[in-house]
Amino acid sequence: MAKEMSEKDILSEENLKISKALRDLSDIEEKLEKIDEQVNKYRISITEPVFEERYNIIANIPNFWKTVLQTHPEFSDFIPVSDFKFLDLLKNLKVVMLSSTDFSITFQFDELKESNFPAQTLTKTFKLTKDITKLKYTSKLTDEQLEDMQEFGFLTSEPIEITWPSDYDSINPNKISMKTDKDFKQNYRAGMKTVFAWFNWTGLKHGKEFPNGDGFANLFMEDIYPHCLKHYIVAKRDIEDEVGESDSEVEEDEEELEGFNIDAINEDEQNKEPSQKKMKI
Amino acid sequence: MAKEMSEKDILSEENLKISKALRDLSDIEEKLEKIDEQVNKYRISITEPVFEERYNIIANIPNFWKTVLQTHPEFSDFIPVSDFKFLDLLKNLKVVMLSSTDFSITFQFDELKESNFPAQTLTKTFKLTKDITKLKYTSKLTDEQLEDMQEFGFLTSEPIEITWPSDYDSINPNKISMKTDKDFKQNYRAGMKTVFAWFNWTGLKHGKEFPNGDGFANLFMEDIYPHCLKHYIVAKRDIEDEVGESDSEVEEDEEELEGFNIDAINEDEQNKEPSQKKMKI
Repeated sequence: MAKEMSEKDILSEENLKISKALRDLSDIEEKLEKIDEQVNKYRISITEPVFEERYNIIANIPNFWKTVLQTHPEFSDFIPVSDFKFLDLLKNLKVVMLSSTDFSITFQFDELKESNFPAQTLTKTFKLTKDITKLKYTSKLTDEQLEDMQEFGFLTSEPIEITWPSDYDSINPNKISMKTDKDFKQNYRAGMKTVFAWFNWTGLKHGKEFPNGDGFANLFMEDIYPHCLKHYIVAKRDIEDEVGESDSEVEEDEEELEGFNIDAINEDEQNKEPSQKKMKI
Repeated sequence: MAKEMSEKDILSEENLKISKALRDLSDIEEKLEKIDEQVNKYRISITEPVFEERYNIIANIPNFWKTVLQTHPEFSDFIPVSDFKFLDLLKNLKVVMLSSTDFSITFQFDELKESNFPAQTLTKTFKLTKDITKLKYTSKLTDEQLEDMQEFGFLTSEPIEITWPSDYDSINPNKISMKTDKDFKQNYRAGMKTVFAWFNWTGLKHGKEFPNGDGFANLFMEDIYPHCLKHYIVAKRDIEDEVGESDSEVEEDEEELEGFNIDAINEDEQNKEPSQKKMKI
């Protein structure tokens, strides 16, 4: 201790000045963080009305979300193939930013009579928390993961009631029972992996609910929703390429796409990364 | 033609509605592009005064930029090792955004008497253009590269007068001559690769001036300048790790870093990517 004291005592005028400068730099960093948040809020506030307008336009384009989701490169990693039949019923989709970290996703499903699947509109809300004491199961998490969750936060969500299609009766957790089903565990696990189980995802039961539910939510919020036009155009092109130009259906597709300034969208896409990077703080 | 007309004629009410919706989506995309630019401008306007404040603080920290540049993972890829002796003289550095695409970088060098290198402050300005007719040499560029430059733009810059250190007399393009130097070509090329030749970079003479001069400029603008605090902290840590804890010089370094909220900076760094991605349009 004595040694430390004496070292502090002999700090020269110059060293004190440097220490002060480094503390000031730390304050600057905090200011830049706040600016980042402020810019995010500003972006949300001016983007929201345009997204709202877009939402109403997309409602007039049949199969818009089906087209986007079926061809999205990562979407299918999250759910079983059998789910696509029901995701094709998605009439419209909306992501609303509630703060710079929290958001809600609204799904508007059409009905599918043969599957006893009713038309239903569901809003699932995702909130960031740093409170790891909320976690119900932590056995599947490493100490490092827990530390990261405490430091940077993790997404949580309330379960949402959703009517499952009758196709899934044998794996629907509300319809199967440990007592009557001999393959209960296996069926329960299969059900847990469907998109319908995701609506029940809480973020608090790692290893015991829909896997990577936060990744699925973030995929909608970060990519699918903001970039849906780009994905739609890419999907339409892919479909055209696959069907071949002689098909009359394709000509119709091209007709539909005529009013669309594809170049403007691609240009935007390519310019976006650098211009975003530019002002990264 | 007749066929096309008849096809257009039979477009159903529904198809007309879809065509209209797709044109409307195209307008939405343009609006989102403008929002992106507007957000960028807003970010620049509120970041600029904080960067100005930071600039004045850094002026009080000896070897700040030397520390950052010497340990930056990519910086050394752009210049020869012999340049570092002179970059160590960098007293301060400033990047100013002139628009969402154009910027200037100001270098404030201290003198180095033994190299006849005077104290000098230089500002180099970079502007984006799409006018490829300005290019003086295009033989090193592919058709695809030229198309991209025309579509997305490329950086250009006016040459800046800089006094070279006498160490570089044998490769200094202002001091060597094709008539008197037998290794002229080789020396000229070696000179062209030094940071001093970069100040002469125009962006119009591909293959005949400082290589990847726009990449070097972008490195300062996108990474080194906005993230200099992070780089400084990482560099200081690396130096501490290398020297070992018993060294008294290190204790001084730790002392200096004491006032610094390192965790806050790291947290900001890790949180930044997702929050930026979040609202990507």
